[in-house]
Amino acid sequence: MKVAKFGGSSVADAEQLEKVARIIQSDKERRIIVVSAPGKRFANDVKVTDLLINLGESYKENRQYERELSLVVERFRSIVTDLNLSDQVIDKIETEIKNIFASSEAIYSKLEALKAVGEDTLAQILSEYLTSLGMNARYLNPKDAGLILSDQPGGAQILEESFDKIYRLREYDGILVIPGFFGYTSTGKLVTFSRGGSDITGSIIAAGVKANLYENFTDVDSVYCVNPTIVNNPKEIATLTYKEMRELSYAGFSVFHAEALIPAVRAEIPVCIKNTNNPNCPGTMIVAKKEIQTGENPVVGIASDEGFMSLYISKYLMNREIGFGRRLLHILEDEGISYEHTPSGIDDMSVIMRANQMDERKERNVIKRIKAELKPDQVHVARGLALIMIVGEGMQRQIGTAYIATKALKDANVNIEMINQGSSEVSLMFGIKEEAVNAAVKSLYQAFFE
Amino acid sequence: MKVAKFGGSSVADAEQLEKVARIIQSDKERRIIVVSAPGKRFANDVKVTDLLINLGESYKENRQYERELSLVVERFRSIVTDLNLSDQVIDKIETEIKNIFASSEAIYSKLEALKAVGEDTLAQILSEYLTSLGMNARYLNPKDAGLILSDQPGGAQILEESFDKIYRLREYDGILVIPGFFGYTSTGKLVTFSRGGSDITGSIIAAGVKANLYENFTDVDSVYCVNPTIVNNPKEIATLTYKEMRELSYAGFSVFHAEALIPAVRAEIPVCIKNTNNPNCPGTMIVAKKEIQTGENPVVGIASDEGFMSLYISKYLMNREIGFGRRLLHILEDEGISYEHTPSGIDDMSVIMRANQMDERKERNVIKRIKAELKPDQVHVARGLALIMIVGEGMQRQIGTAYIATKALKDANVNIEMINQGSSEVSLMFGIKEEAVNAAVKSLYQAFFE
Repeated sequence: MKVAKFGGSSVADAEQLEKVARIIQSDKERRIIVVSAPGKRFANDVKVTDLLINLGESYKENRQYERELSLVVERFRSIVTDLNLSDQVIDKIETEIKNIFASSEAIYSKLEALKAVGEDTLAQILSEYLTSLGMNARYLNPKDAGLILSDQPGGAQILEESFDKIYRLREYDGILVIPGFFGYTSTGKLVTFSRGGSDITGSIIAAGVKANLYENFTDVDSVYCVNPTIVNNPKEIATLTYKEMRELSYAGFSVFHAEALIPAVRAEIPVCIKNTNNPNCPGTMIVAKKEIQTGENPVVGIASDEGFMSLYISKYLMNREIGFGRRLLHILEDEGISYEHTPSGIDDMSVIMRANQMDERKERNVIKRIKAELKPDQVHVARGLALIMIVGEGMQRQIGTAYIATKALKDANVNIEMINQGSSEVSLMFGIKEEAVNAAVKSLYQAFFE
Repeated sequence: MKVAKFGGSSVADAEQLEKVARIIQSDKERRIIVVSAPGKRFANDVKVTDLLINLGESYKENRQYERELSLVVERFRSIVTDLNLSDQVIDKIETEIKNIFASSEAIYSKLEALKAVGEDTLAQILSEYLTSLGMNARYLNPKDAGLILSDQPGGAQILEESFDKIYRLREYDGILVIPGFFGYTSTGKLVTFSRGGSDITGSIIAAGVKANLYENFTDVDSVYCVNPTIVNNPKEIATLTYKEMRELSYAGFSVFHAEALIPAVRAEIPVCIKNTNNPNCPGTMIVAKKEIQTGENPVVGIASDEGFMSLYISKYLMNREIGFGRRLLHILEDEGISYEHTPSGIDDMSVIMRANQMDERKERNVIKRIKAELKPDQVHVARGLALIMIVGEGMQRQIGTAYIATKALKDANVNIEMINQGSSEVSLMFGIKEEAVNAAVKSLYQAFFE
């Protein structure tokens, strides 16, 4: 069986929901459907979840909220009307929201419950719509689906015990429509995942029911092998391993929340990114392992990201001092700074980190402590660093990838500030000056993909 | 003024000492001479310091030691005779050694004093010889030279207060001959440096008197840009910076003890490695800074060393865990393991270390703790790793060095396990399989030097 998750733009209006219905209908394996709340229909449109948050704000501050409430209701009414469904569900929304406000819960719990109304209502509308088309579909509340979450409003985590219950969803015949983004604590309180949490719900359910495939329907045909704002219509990626996706998603590539995939990754469920507006396009598969054909391009993607800095420390005979590196990292940790990489020479080491973590005050503290505690010969900071990540599991076995990459950078007249390859051999990383990123990425793309 | 240090092979016998005298005579700037004890005259010869250590052993174990004693004495007698010097000094040795044995000092202090007899005697012989040649030379005991050391027999450290006193050696006219390898504690007890400590004495005195040059006379014309056992008669290095020397000396290149140079490095005294047997050869200069001509080869040397291993750890979302790397390094530190490099991907990191530090028991402990404390998805160890270090300060400004290097490795069909560049940009490091070292180094040498 397949679990299919449809994102906000896929359920933004009746027209989109018709596409969704056709997609579900076209494959009997699509047995469990997870939906987001309706997203934007056009550039300046407002997502339903944001309408609900505005409504919550007004309520919280004891302002009039009739207008905000009607915006939510009307958004759903237009969907229901265009799909020729009864408007019972519309009345239900108003009562539900009023009940939330009337309840004796703490204000933050009320706002949590309010945020979830978008997904919950849309799931009910979709199941009703599918039924009206003659499909055997039913709405299932996350509580009945078995999603027991930790009591962390806005950042809840799935509890292990949930998975056994979720597995039993296999026993249902017909199609289940489950709202994403929220679940319930063991005491029955509604809690939401972090924003964009419908991806998390889909991934949890796919893992729980041990689906053959987790389909994530969005509005792009597939994942591109390089940032399309730097290279015009770049090649699409057919298959990515989890590892490759992680290495790419790290440097600027936002396939989707890495956390969202954890349950699917742990259960080794293959994931497919597909386009609701072009369902015949195969999309991009994300899998645990893949066969690499000899002769095949060892590189699957090139990611780049700016806004890094490096902290350089040198000290004669540094490498004789056991604990030097550890003590340096401890100083950064005390300041709550996480680092990306630590390239090192014999008597020096650099720490590469995101520059936004280190304001001037922190920089002063860190430098002061390093001087006092590590007594280095030199310590200084360089900002304006960009990282470029060349990713592909094939690189492990193929000789010459580093040669092709360094040649491309030389040809683009880019000076390499830093190279890091070696751990997994799934990625080859370069540090360069931010100004040089576009030239570097273009040249690397040509070298590996043209 | 110049401080000239002559190593064991340079003072092994009368013939060598005649060369030394000519070298001193040929340059009025050579005002302070530091000497080792006589070294080997031929392959199977025994160094005087080893003869003294054997003598000490016999004495310590209450064995007959006449034979060992006579070996020491005869060694010096032949030198004195061949140089036509009076043999007073010879009688002095015997009495001195007997006094050491007769003293009320603890046994370890007696052995310390005994070890120093070789340098001390040779310094006296040399000054006498220089005088016999009409030079204004005198022997100066390290105590009178001002070498006050910490009370760490066999591993003594110079005390800061020494340097002011040493500076006053400038006031002497004529040539001072000072024995290397030992000094005295503030309470007047003789203590030695680590083995090979004459280099340390020379470097300390050069720094103390603020010499224009510290000459280190050995039996090689200069430092080679690559290991001569891998590449036949490779190019010689004319000038090295301290930094370059450190990067090279690290991976197999033994110019000399890095520690020995510290005083000279801190005082920015240029060092010259020269050959006693070929003094007209300019040798290799080691300096604080050097001008890099544009178009000049940015690489000064290629070093390689085997016997490394890597410890690989991967964990999904590792980079979100602040302190992960620090905790890993702490585990190694607890086992007394020092590491060389830590290349990292987004969800994995490797620690590169010398394999001899990690026996099977330690490996089990480390892996056990990593699994228990860091809960990684994967952890494993790979041995048989070699590091190749391409060194040159010029690499910072020159684009394309990494390209030349990776091309050379590709041409030699060498797979790159790891690349590390980035901290100082004085070196570019590759990790490869040990079997591939010779092919890799030969190919890199061709690419950069031919």
